[in-house]
Amino acid sequence: MDAKQYYTAEVHGDYQIFELGDFAVAEGGTIPNCQLAYKTFGTLNVAKDNVILVPTWFSGSHQIMQQVYVGEGRALDPGKYFIVIINQLGNGLSSAPHDTPFPRNQANFPQLRISDDVRAQHQLLTELFGIDFLALIVGGSMGAQQTYEWAARYPDMVKRAAPIAGTAQVTPHNFLLTQGLQNSIMSDPAWLNGWYEKSTDVHIGLRRLAEHCNLMGWSPAFFKKDRWRTLGFTSLEDFITRFMIGYFGPMDPNNLLVMIKKWQLGDICYQRSDNLKEALAKIKAKVFVLAIEGDLMFPPADCEHEQLMIPDSEFHITRTTDGHFALFGTDPHHLEQVDAHLKTLLATPAKISI
Amino acid sequence: MDAKQYYTAEVHGDYQIFELGDFAVAEGGTIPNCQLAYKTFGTLNVAKDNVILVPTWFSGSHQIMQQVYVGEGRALDPGKYFIVIINQLGNGLSSAPHDTPFPRNQANFPQLRISDDVRAQHQLLTELFGIDFLALIVGGSMGAQQTYEWAARYPDMVKRAAPIAGTAQVTPHNFLLTQGLQNSIMSDPAWLNGWYEKSTDVHIGLRRLAEHCNLMGWSPAFFKKDRWRTLGFTSLEDFITRFMIGYFGPMDPNNLLVMIKKWQLGDICYQRSDNLKEALAKIKAKVFVLAIEGDLMFPPADCEHEQLMIPDSEFHITRTTDGHFALFGTDPHHLEQVDAHLKTLLATPAKISI
Repeated sequence: MDAKQYYTAEVHGDYQIFELGDFAVAEGGTIPNCQLAYKTFGTLNVAKDNVILVPTWFSGSHQIMQQVYVGEGRALDPGKYFIVIINQLGNGLSSAPHDTPFPRNQANFPQLRISDDVRAQHQLLTELFGIDFLALIVGGSMGAQQTYEWAARYPDMVKRAAPIAGTAQVTPHNFLLTQGLQNSIMSDPAWLNGWYEKSTDVHIGLRRLAEHCNLMGWSPAFFKKDRWRTLGFTSLEDFITRFMIGYFGPMDPNNLLVMIKKWQLGDICYQRSDNLKEALAKIKAKVFVLAIEGDLMFPPADCEHEQLMIPDSEFHITRTTDGHFALFGTDPHHLEQVDAHLKTLLATPAKISI
Repeated sequence: MDAKQYYTAEVHGDYQIFELGDFAVAEGGTIPNCQLAYKTFGTLNVAKDNVILVPTWFSGSHQIMQQVYVGEGRALDPGKYFIVIINQLGNGLSSAPHDTPFPRNQANFPQLRISDDVRAQHQLLTELFGIDFLALIVGGSMGAQQTYEWAARYPDMVKRAAPIAGTAQVTPHNFLLTQGLQNSIMSDPAWLNGWYEKSTDVHIGLRRLAEHCNLMGWSPAFFKKDRWRTLGFTSLEDFITRFMIGYFGPMDPNNLLVMIKKWQLGDICYQRSDNLKEALAKIKAKVFVLAIEGDLMFPPADCEHEQLMIPDSEFHITRTTDGHFALFGTDPHHLEQVDAHLKTLLATPAKISI
């Protein structure tokens, strides 16, 4: 399967499109006919106060967020809430290099910032649904970056926020990690500075990306305890090949690079005059900062460091063997903890009111 | 500077050579005219019971072990002990691909095992000095792998052992990490499967190796706290370029690959009939397993896991901001802790006696 077949409703399930027109991005440049791919669950109530926004993480789509986090009896219960999952720009369902026409194609696609996603999502929620408040925004990893950006950029609109395993400002170590992820692809001579013919030409780079994500995404304990067995694989090599390479292999290298660089540059202070401490202090939402035990990508200490600067906030570590990629839902016990925290947060009165 | 200039006494300080002749290695193949580069400090006493053996880590030489760990008043005090630092095979001062003549040159150099080092070191100590006992063997990282191998292979010869930040058997995560280190070099088209003309032809691969080691060798906190400032650098980029790339850049890619693969295959059970638990249970030395806080390469939990299987052993975590590369001596407070543990260990009566 190559990128053209991969970025489809056949693979990711149905979704809707919101048209942004020509969308000027923060660093300069414009995405022509910019589109956000999104999906909603549940019903927007008359007061429009039951909205939960769910942004997506690196390489993910609305599908995994739905499968892992949305369901009856779950914190994200479509029987109670109007849940909007919006694919991040660059992910291939929302606008991305792989299918944007010349002369914005491939390496000519503009570099994005987390704030571009959040501005586009804001436009979708306000223009399409007339939404003024979020009961909750919750996202993991790059979804947490978007969650922080929402709470910092629209402080009067976000009642509750739950960034999971992510930061408001990329740490130096996280910056270096994302540099390594980029190098995985860019070191493949077939990448051709973004001007490859077919996405699968860059299969060696994509495989290295898969291996690097495998190293940093799971915890040492995940491998030590052969946790991949419970996921249905017969050997570590089988897991790396079928799960990790099978996952990244069909994706588009330029799409992935746009997202990785966006991740690397993540900083709620970008284009603001205040510093991180000041910016976090202005957040009005009730915030649950959730960090995952053994997370090598976003270590709990880095998450807690930011939580301490958010006025109305709590810090919780979720326990698991799996590390960062427990976000994928590999550990049911971990999902129970996340759900419990989100239910508590949703039951907490917000300071912001209509 | 290229590899030919780098692997010299001018760069690494004086050393002696022990000739092993043609040395058959465990996986098959032979190193012709095999040499161990070593250096001694202090005087071997008449009873020959004051010997401390210090193997080297990946990419290191006797020089850094001397500079960081040997000194008057230190645990490794040449006024009291006869300290023998032996460069590991493949490091470029001891036999290595870069200067072994055709047809054992470059990619034709045999793949090594940790047990090859330990057998060669055993030959040096017994044949050259007539040594029957080690008062202590202490090594960090790959030096810890050799320390475990010594204690397991020659249980009646090792009175005390202090493996620091290393394991007796490579964990799956560590295996994947070393795969990433290899990929850093091997992904450079200029590597030419080991048949490059000059080591510096592979400078892009060497740079990627430096970046990968930078990511995994230091802790997230090292970068968060700008610890590189105290080492004399003016920016993170300056540190990566002058310290990390400056360090690995002059080395020989094949030398590094031989060492990384040796690391990756590290396992005291290799060519034994017993399993890890049984092999560790047979160690007679008094063992202090030392692990470094925040170590991403050899996480303390993995070190403790093995310590629990060693009969006469203790587990100690040394505290530092720097992570694995605190081994380099970047944190004086960390060195004090290591010294204190080694002094305690040296003062502890050993079960093995003459």
